[in-house]
Amino acid sequence: MFPRNQWYVAGLSSELQDKPVARTLLGKPVVLFRGPSGEAAALEDRCCHRQLPLSYGTLEDGGIRCGYHGLLFGPDGKCLEIPGQEKIPSKAFVKPYIVQERNQIVWIWIGQTDDTAPDCEPPEYAVHDNPKYQFKGGLFHYEAPYQLIHDNLLDLSHLGYVHLKTIGGNARLHMSAPTRVEGEGDTVRVVRWMKESAPPPTYTAAWPYKGLIDRWQEIEFNLSYLAIWTGATDAGTEDLADPARGGFHMRGFHGITPETETTSHYFWTIASNSHPDCDDNFPTVYEQTKNTFAEDKVIIEAQYKNMLQFDNPACVDIHVDAGANRARRIITRLNLQTLEQVAAE
Amino acid sequence: MFPRNQWYVAGLSSELQDKPVARTLLGKPVVLFRGPSGEAAALEDRCCHRQLPLSYGTLEDGGIRCGYHGLLFGPDGKCLEIPGQEKIPSKAFVKPYIVQERNQIVWIWIGQTDDTAPDCEPPEYAVHDNPKYQFKGGLFHYEAPYQLIHDNLLDLSHLGYVHLKTIGGNARLHMSAPTRVEGEGDTVRVVRWMKESAPPPTYTAAWPYKGLIDRWQEIEFNLSYLAIWTGATDAGTEDLADPARGGFHMRGFHGITPETETTSHYFWTIASNSHPDCDDNFPTVYEQTKNTFAEDKVIIEAQYKNMLQFDNPACVDIHVDAGANRARRIITRLNLQTLEQVAAE
Amino acid sequence: MFPRNQWYVAGLSSELQDKPVARTLLGKPVVLFRGPSGEAAALEDRCCHRQLPLSYGTLEDGGIRCGYHGLLFGPDGKCLEIPGQEKIPSKAFVKPYIVQERNQIVWIWIGQTDDTAPDCEPPEYAVHDNPKYQFKGGLFHYEAPYQLIHDNLLDLSHLGYVHLKTIGGNARLHMSAPTRVEGEGDTVRVVRWMKESAPPPTYTAAWPYKGLIDRWQEIEFNLSYLAIWTGATDAGTEDLADPARGGFHMRGFHGITPETETTSHYFWTIASNSHPDCDDNFPTVYEQTKNTFAEDKVIIEAQYKNMLQFDNPACVDIHVDAGANRARRIITRLNLQTLEQVAAE
Ligand code: FES
Ligand code: FES
Ligand code: FES
Repeated sequence: MFPRNQWYVAGLSSELQDKPVARTLLGKPVVLFRGPSGEAAALEDRCCHRQLPLSYGTLEDGGIRCGYHGLLFGPDGKCLEIPGQEKIPSKAFVKPYIVQERNQIVWIWIGQTDDTAPDCEPPEYAVHDNPKYQFKGGLFHYEAPYQLIHDNLLDLSHLGYVHLKTIGGNARLHMSAPTRVEGEGDTVRVVRWMKESAPPPTYTAAWPYKGLIDRWQEIEFNLSYLAIWTGATDAGTEDLADPARGGFHMRGFHGITPETETTSHYFWTIASNSHPDCDDNFPTVYEQTKNTFAEDKVIIEAQYKNMLQFDNPACVDIHVDAGANRARRIITRLNLQTLEQVAAE
Repeated sequence: MFPRNQWYVAGLSSELQDKPVARTLLGKPVVLFRGPSGEAAALEDRCCHRQLPLSYGTLEDGGIRCGYHGLLFGPDGKCLEIPGQEKIPSKAFVKPYIVQERNQIVWIWIGQTDDTAPDCEPPEYAVHDNPKYQFKGGLFHYEAPYQLIHDNLLDLSHLGYVHLKTIGGNARLHMSAPTRVEGEGDTVRVVRWMKESAPPPTYTAAWPYKGLIDRWQEIEFNLSYLAIWTGATDAGTEDLADPARGGFHMRGFHGITPETETTSHYFWTIASNSHPDCDDNFPTVYEQTKNTFAEDKVIIEAQYKNMLQFDNPACVDIHVDAGANRARRIITRLNLQTLEQVAAE
Repeated sequence: MFPRNQWYVAGLSSELQDKPVARTLLGKPVVLFRGPSGEAAALEDRCCHRQLPLSYGTLEDGGIRCGYHGLLFGPDGKCLEIPGQEKIPSKAFVKPYIVQERNQIVWIWIGQTDDTAPDCEPPEYAVHDNPKYQFKGGLFHYEAPYQLIHDNLLDLSHLGYVHLKTIGGNARLHMSAPTRVEGEGDTVRVVRWMKESAPPPTYTAAWPYKGLIDRWQEIEFNLSYLAIWTGATDAGTEDLADPARGGFHMRGFHGITPETETTSHYFWTIASNSHPDCDDNFPTVYEQTKNTFAEDKVIIEAQYKNMLQFDNPACVDIHVDAGANRARRIITRLNLQTLEQVAAE
């Protein structure tokens, strides 16, 4: 079970090109495409005639045409044409889903019931539209439920073990930095400052640091995505609590959408800024990020398979679990709310 | 459930060479091979000693020898030899199935009960023995129940969408030709004439047409196979209802045999005639046909997967479904007959 | 169900190098590795923190370190370190299994209950430590329950059919040699002597036989392994019942350990002696043995799949089944004993 009255990531804007995209989201098979005016659209991925997935069809000016007998559907799901037949039966339509594009992200609302309309705009993620950053992303499919990905992102201690060969660096250094976990409403923040530390190679390649640096890692958990901001300034020059602080920045977007109860989509982007005096190292940042996420996938899928194999045994908590446990409590609370609503109806 | 008191295609004669052929037919694992006098034979694919599939064995003059401890069985299932042992226990035999070869097709009868013997000969398909035609065929395995293949073959409208890149041609032209659906007993006929139309490239390559052509498509559904006859004569020169009409012919045989309730075998051949003044284009006809059927397989398997995923939702019928729906009613009727018989016993 | 109060093969000593080995044994996922003093160790393959298999971790001097957040466990399962945390909770430990290394084999004891300690040493297999032999081995994974592998090894008649192209030779010769089946306690012995027979090519390559040979095949079944001794001396020169007899020897070790109720591990080694006057043909002996076992795997897995498909039908016994049936009765008896013990508790 997952909270449904929420905006979830359906895809990145860059995915919607000249072919329909098939994707199961929150258990619903959906076909994503752009309608006649370029707007993102989502329909149930099933032709009402003989059930072929519409994603096997082709995009035409007015909508999507089924790849079996050619029925044409508009972005609202209405059947616009039945080749060789004048009359269109009133039952000939396909269920539409509510989608909205914002900051290069396609958000979908699949409410708890068919008539639960969104009560808010989809989340803002301004980094994608900030000219100071370039960004690029991708998608991982996980054979694991989505909360295990939250756990992974909300804990920074695994860097030294899972990512030993990529970005991990010194495991013990990471472990010893003090970590602050705080929360407000349905969000969780995990913040760690590593002041007066030596800059790692990726940083010195990207920014003309003078010597030691003040480094930060900020994780912001929201129900359907996490924003992770890491970076550093010259030691002692700026306030690490200032949202407008300078230095080199790496900003990760992590949209995590349940595919089913046991599988997930992980949409990610990485953004960074560049300094006029340094070579543009964004390609390196992008590659490293992608490799890192591939390492996480191996671990998380192995973890989930083992949880199943051992029939979900009890876990022993340690200090690094504070943020993840707080996020889990939020989801439990939202799920309980839903159950109460459903019971009350 | 499928009607069982019927002849179904077990294979093409050309398949039975020097190796046993393993195939599950109507839910029964069967090994097919030729007996001592070259006759087609079928046994339950299971050695009575330690259950190795007999299809892992080898063919010897007298029958089939198990590949584990060497028991030898005749085409009637009797154990002929136990290496190293004199006495053959009376229980040492393998269940035989009734097969009959006709017109290069191996037919099998797997009755509703073990003692339901065939009450008729297997169907005739004279095209395979008509010297005016050459033919060649093959086999597709489908992850879909067999009626979805009937549906596909009984509807001509999908040509323009599924086979757009192979034989499809102009979708709308196909759609607008009037279609006649008729039925008699347990058969259905779908006939479409396209008079005074331009000949497609395959046709002009094979036949010296003078100009416009009268073209026909005739589909004959029978419970275990369909015969599809397409072709054309010079416009206005012949009666398209005359079974002896001339011109270029393409004749398809489509034997559809349930493997299980949810999977199927699709045995097909294509036959065509050639004109002394034209190059033999049979290799092209064969290749195009094979490619076309591969396209159908992709669509039908996707359709079935989606029906499962959506738990078999209601379909909205359109004009093209007339033939297919008639065929489905025949199968439903035969299945009901069987249920009544079973209940009466 | 399988008898649990037994030593089973967990692996060959040569497998435990610098990486942990993951293996499910008798239904229990286990990680095998060497502890600080080089001793074989086995733990439940599950970190108590967040359930990652420990086999995804790394070996360090003191034990095995989890590949997610770095918890370190000793060979006894105790948590030795939680990076970044002083206090180690008392619940932070991993279940250890009893293992013992003997004659280059790692044996494991997974008792019926957690407190069923071994009441004996693991079996001796002195061949591995006999300087007159060289040996080498490997591991096959079987999609089949372990008793089907016993059946295969206890019957010599399949050589002529399954191994026709490798070591089989003349099927009928093998079949006609008299076979003695005897048993004592929980063991079964199948012995066959082929006196005054022509030496096969492998034998003449390895040993300077003068002419005809006296050949033997001795199979000794024990619950968790079989020892198969084949070889030959010059005809009439030695007593084939003398354990110290000379000639060319091939000695196979066959450790068969249930992975689950339906899958198995098959650990094998082959040992042989060499004669100063002949080329060392051990590499050939090893390769042939490996190829032979790969042939058995194909047959046994096909057999098991067919047993499932036909829902375990009755078998017709023949003469070759005597040894295998005796072994099956031993296992049935041990399983019954266990059921009675469990019921009595
Ligand atoms: S299945 Fe879509 S048009 Fe027929
Ligand atoms: S299984 Fe066929 S002869 Fe033994
Ligand atoms: S899962 Fe092993 S240390 Fe966290």
